[in-house]
Amino acid sequence: MSVIDVGILGATGQVGQQFIALLTNHPWFRVSWLGASERSAGKAYSEATAWRLPALLPDSVARLPVENAQEAAPRAPKLVFSGLDSSVAGEIEAAFAQAGHIVVSNARNYRMEATVPLLIPEVNADHLALLAAQGAAAGWKGRIVTNPNCAVVVLAMALAPLRQFGLKKAMITTLQAISGAGYPGVPSWDILGNVIPFIGGGEEEKIETEANKILGAVKNGRPVEIVNHPVTISAAVTRVPVQNGHTGSIAVALDQHPDLDSIIAAWNSFRGKPQDLELPSAPPQPIVYLTEQNRPQPSLDANRDGGMTVTVGRLRRCPVLDYKFAALGHNTIRGAAGAAILNAELMHREGLL
Amino acid sequence: MSVIDVGILGATGQVGQQFIALLTNHPWFRVSWLGASERSAGKAYSEATAWRLPALLPDSVARLPVENAQEAAPRAPKLVFSGLDSSVAGEIEAAFAQAGHIVVSNARNYRMEATVPLLIPEVNADHLALLAAQGAAAGWKGRIVTNPNCAVVVLAMALAPLRQFGLKKAMITTLQAISGAGYPGVPSWDILGNVIPFIGGGEEEKIETEANKILGAVKNGRPVEIVNHPVTISAAVTRVPVQNGHTGSIAVALDQHPDLDSIIAAWNSFRGKPQDLELPSAPPQPIVYLTEQNRPQPSLDANRDGGMTVTVGRLRRCPVLDYKFAALGHNTIRGAAGAAILNAELMHREGLL
Amino acid sequence: MSVIDVGILGATGQVGQQFIALLTNHPWFRVSWLGASERSAGKAYSEATAWRLPALLPDSVARLPVENAQEAAPRAPKLVFSGLDSSVAGEIEAAFAQAGHIVVSNARNYRMEATVPLLIPEVNADHLALLAAQGAAAGWKGRIVTNPNCAVVVLAMALAPLRQFGLKKAMITTLQAISGAGYPGVPSWDILGNVIPFIGGGEEEKIETEANKILGAVKNGRPVEIVNHPVTISAAVTRVPVQNGHTGSIAVALDQHPDLDSIIAAWNSFRGKPQDLELPSAPPQPIVYLTEQNRPQPSLDANRDGGMTVTVGRLRRCPVLDYKFAALGHNTIRGAAGAAILNAELMHREGLL
Amino acid sequence: MSVIDVGILGATGQVGQQFIALLTNHPWFRVSWLGASERSAGKAYSEATAWRLPALLPDSVARLPVENAQEAAPRAPKLVFSGLDSSVAGEIEAAFAQAGHIVVSNARNYRMEATVPLLIPEVNADHLALLAAQGAAAGWKGRIVTNPNCAVVVLAMALAPLRQFGLKKAMITTLQAISGAGYPGVPSWDILGNVIPFIGGGEEEKIETEANKILGAVKNGRPVEIVNHPVTISAAVTRVPVQNGHTGSIAVALDQHPDLDSIIAAWNSFRGKPQDLELPSAPPQPIVYLTEQNRPQPSLDANRDGGMTVTVGRLRRCPVLDYKFAALGHNTIRGAAGAAILNAELMHREGLL
Repeated sequence: MSVIDVGILGATGQVGQQFIALLTNHPWFRVSWLGASERSAGKAYSEATAWRLPALLPDSVARLPVENAQEAAPRAPKLVFSGLDSSVAGEIEAAFAQAGHIVVSNARNYRMEATVPLLIPEVNADHLALLAAQGAAAGWKGRIVTNPNCAVVVLAMALAPLRQFGLKKAMITTLQAISGAGYPGVPSWDILGNVIPFIGGGEEEKIETEANKILGAVKNGRPVEIVNHPVTISAAVTRVPVQNGHTGSIAVALDQHPDLDSIIAAWNSFRGKPQDLELPSAPPQPIVYLTEQNRPQPSLDANRDGGMTVTVGRLRRCPVLDYKFAALGHNTIRGAAGAAILNAELMHREGLL
Repeated sequence: MSVIDVGILGATGQVGQQFIALLTNHPWFRVSWLGASERSAGKAYSEATAWRLPALLPDSVARLPVENAQEAAPRAPKLVFSGLDSSVAGEIEAAFAQAGHIVVSNARNYRMEATVPLLIPEVNADHLALLAAQGAAAGWKGRIVTNPNCAVVVLAMALAPLRQFGLKKAMITTLQAISGAGYPGVPSWDILGNVIPFIGGGEEEKIETEANKILGAVKNGRPVEIVNHPVTISAAVTRVPVQNGHTGSIAVALDQHPDLDSIIAAWNSFRGKPQDLELPSAPPQPIVYLTEQNRPQPSLDANRDGGMTVTVGRLRRCPVLDYKFAALGHNTIRGAAGAAILNAELMHREGLL
Repeated sequence: MSVIDVGILGATGQVGQQFIALLTNHPWFRVSWLGASERSAGKAYSEATAWRLPALLPDSVARLPVENAQEAAPRAPKLVFSGLDSSVAGEIEAAFAQAGHIVVSNARNYRMEATVPLLIPEVNADHLALLAAQGAAAGWKGRIVTNPNCAVVVLAMALAPLRQFGLKKAMITTLQAISGAGYPGVPSWDILGNVIPFIGGGEEEKIETEANKILGAVKNGRPVEIVNHPVTISAAVTRVPVQNGHTGSIAVALDQHPDLDSIIAAWNSFRGKPQDLELPSAPPQPIVYLTEQNRPQPSLDANRDGGMTVTVGRLRRCPVLDYKFAALGHNTIRGAAGAAILNAELMHREGLL
Repeated sequence: MSVIDVGILGATGQVGQQFIALLTNHPWFRVSWLGASERSAGKAYSEATAWRLPALLPDSVARLPVENAQEAAPRAPKLVFSGLDSSVAGEIEAAFAQAGHIVVSNARNYRMEATVPLLIPEVNADHLALLAAQGAAAGWKGRIVTNPNCAVVVLAMALAPLRQFGLKKAMITTLQAISGAGYPGVPSWDILGNVIPFIGGGEEEKIETEANKILGAVKNGRPVEIVNHPVTISAAVTRVPVQNGHTGSIAVALDQHPDLDSIIAAWNSFRGKPQDLELPSAPPQPIVYLTEQNRPQPSLDANRDGGMTVTVGRLRRCPVLDYKFAALGHNTIRGAAGAAILNAELMHREGLL
């Protein structure tokens, strides 16, 4: 198989670095172009960025020049991953899509657009059908595909197998890792030995709306559209002094009342297209129920299967709703860069690149 | 006013140390007797304990001998505070009560007994009426009075002013500090940079039952009894790397639908007997609503008014229940030693010592 | 005694907030003027700052207007404390001194100037004699007095009583708290569960030079000057995930070879002018030797006596130099705002305000 | 190559778990026998232990029965790794050696015995010559080989390439991770947001003596012996809230005065037998000098090359000794289980198993 060149928008940021780390030794994709803000343009990547990951920066990327990504770049490859901050992603991603690029984005800007897939490949691979209508709707030659907010992905994956039981309501309190805030992100003075019961940027609103689209069904009309899942969601977010891994304390109301084992079986047996197609970044079992009574835990479970598995535990009855449990996912892998890479892998295998 | 001598059961533990720290310079009470396990008996307190609080151990207590507290101690004063572990509190506290002591206990063992007050003086000072029946029911010459679990006190205080709006349901996810687990408590390997979605000892069950008793009404019959408040509670607990201060992410359903300002006013104006009587440990305003969008926070708010104030913030509508908010209290002060001392202060002013 | 009005330069920063917290209820000084950058000018202090300390912001200060402190301010009182960042302190402090203010500064800019006292009142109160020459040398109507870098103060205080034994060499590895970096300061991603073996801004150089001046002797000539102490110092600094309190692992070479008890006695008996004059912020015993084998510790000892005491422990022989020990001080109190306030208290009692 | 069965003494402890994690998929060794205390004997390993590592416990080991390791076990394979606590390692390891086992131990008990190699294969592989004399000296049919204390290994590796410059003195202040204390180890109350300037068990004495033996030369007499390196070492240890990775702040005095680049070259070019023999656990470059001014850091560098590389940085002149620098190693891998495995790999290739 020939190698596919990819570019990274926002290459020097926290998510951009994670893209580079995850794409090192990727069997299909090779990082060959880097875009960042004007401040970095013209420098070699190793000079433009302060590398902050334990994974070593590969020499081949360290030497790449960084280009100004304020506008579409003629030398950028067709496929570009975007780790741009939402304050600039709107314009830049549109410019790249207009110029014919496939933008696989982690930014929030286009997630809720009617013709932009908000994708978790195990859950709603069929939402890629929206792409057929996107060009006409947006006036783009290329396309934009998005992945969910880093807290939403944990919730939506845990809820997906519960749809079969008549999912009606979900409440979540999140305990979110600091890496979710990017870099420099949360000042250490604010979070060391502390909890902050708030995250800016409309975090709770995103959780309360994105999951409905992700869990929604494709309605084949002209054009194709997504019918949102009717589950009512309430989110309360907190920041905790954890490096990586968003934990959710979740309660749900269901129409049916399956026994606990049936719910656990639904999680453990859940599979999707990434597993069928054996995509390189696909975890063998996307949702793993842990039977120990004190799991999942970020420091023990967030990196499972390269950070692409969502772990769930402590399923029990809820006196107010019906069931409650804990769920965990790696926020910068399953919740950001890894999610986007899995999206691109799916699109490649579906012939959409 | 003459000084009242007090003893401390479990004096060498985490809560015992907190009792000593809080009683230093207390205007009414003077620590004059210390009980601990056989291992410590006979030693001076400074040798028997490894003092672990920033507050300096007062010399007068450092020199006190520690007595074996496996059985009632003739030299112990009438009033004893108990910071005993629940594994031994049952027998020892009963022995002391039988021998005529007033045991003001932080242990969970007798909290749910029908004739034992489970007291938050601002909320249910009238529950002291149970004491009249306790002697006959238990066959004790003395009495036992208890304070709630350290997570319950935050929830129960935040809910108390909401009873007027028809409180029906409450869901809470806690983010609990490590000091709640005593000493040595949680191994650092387990919690540094981590979250544990479980706390042993029936923590969730305690939260789901104790609040109903605390919020309940006195029914004057023969004997007097408490009619539990009917609110349905669901709790999910987590441990976080915070030194002191339990945070709760709380949602409630109410019969009435007051506007947000009415709820905030209900919290801010809430007062009880400790404020009326100007008890030494009473905070001027037991519940304080913080208007900043990212509060309350353990490192900024847990020590407010000596750790006796519960702070609340982020009140907003809940799409699933009716309202949601965050609440915080100092777990070893308002949730343990400070709570017991406030109980004793109330009893003293009510003539019950 | 009449109240002395004071102003605070850099009022919205980390040190500025600490000034306000420490001056609340001060018996002599009253905060009546606040200066900060242009961005804050014109706002009430409570709007201009994000208050980040557990101590409550006093209402009287919350309502004060913030003035632009880029230039001397006619309404500022004679005495101003400076918590300015060193990037701007040079010009602004000079402007205030020129305009006749007494600037008691925590910034590094003027510390090593020949006629500027670098003061630890217990150690070198006599260095105030430099002020007589400062006006002529600098062309200022007012004066500038400085306190040491937050790590230096711990070292210099621990070394001061060792001068009598022929202090020759000192090596220190610091473990410094995050509050020393100001706000937002160290990103949490960089320090949570981590150690950084570097601090910018010439931290090691400051430690290796400031202590010589502090420990130096006044030479009464025309003009008065300071003869640096000849101790050779080597510093290696690290940042650790601690909120407050800089720890130093220190080794020294001495000409004499006293027994360990003599050194401990020298520390414990060390007193200076602040104790003689009973200055409001003076700790009763400025250096306390802790006998427990695992002390001093930031979380237990940094706040001793309001954060103004330096604690020392673990004195033992050093196979390479002569002795080694650990020392600790509160970096934003004894090492910044509290130090400056003690300087001003001394100056007031010496008639220099 | 046929697989070599290995046993693990102390299999349920922190180091025992690390052995199992590192030996999963090892090309030569297969864990086939587990020994632990009587409490665990008879249980399957997954029931006897609370697995606390992010690496998944392999099913093949999870099912292994745990045997009582109080005495030599007939079914244990010839090669056993020991992660026993020093309180029991003395007797048990001797019993195993007497029974003919090769005990590759992480415990401190036999490290300083004259005929027991204290091995860092890159530094002193030739110390294996001691084994010839060990049988007669100890009366053992088998042998014991040890690796250094987790802090010593960082120091000794960093110092080894400096011997060529006339190494005379070394001072080290360590900042040690909590995993070095085993499990449950350090209570979270003691270390969260804190520094403890002390580690029990004679940590400083071990550092001040073990390195001399490690860096010593083989003297071929009858019997063979080790002549200790004459470097004088002074150690001050601290515990910091870091999960894994011991940092050392080190200063050295050398007879020669090479320029900084020569020292850096000595580190970067340092190789030993593990690299020559391409042992499976050998890092390609055992000591890596990092040029960034704020490295090495535990969270970024401790896991380099599977945790087997020691990283060094910030080399600069020292005003008191000659040079100073920072060094870092992974304490439970390079400083414990990984070290022992590398020892066994070397012994296998040398025909000593």
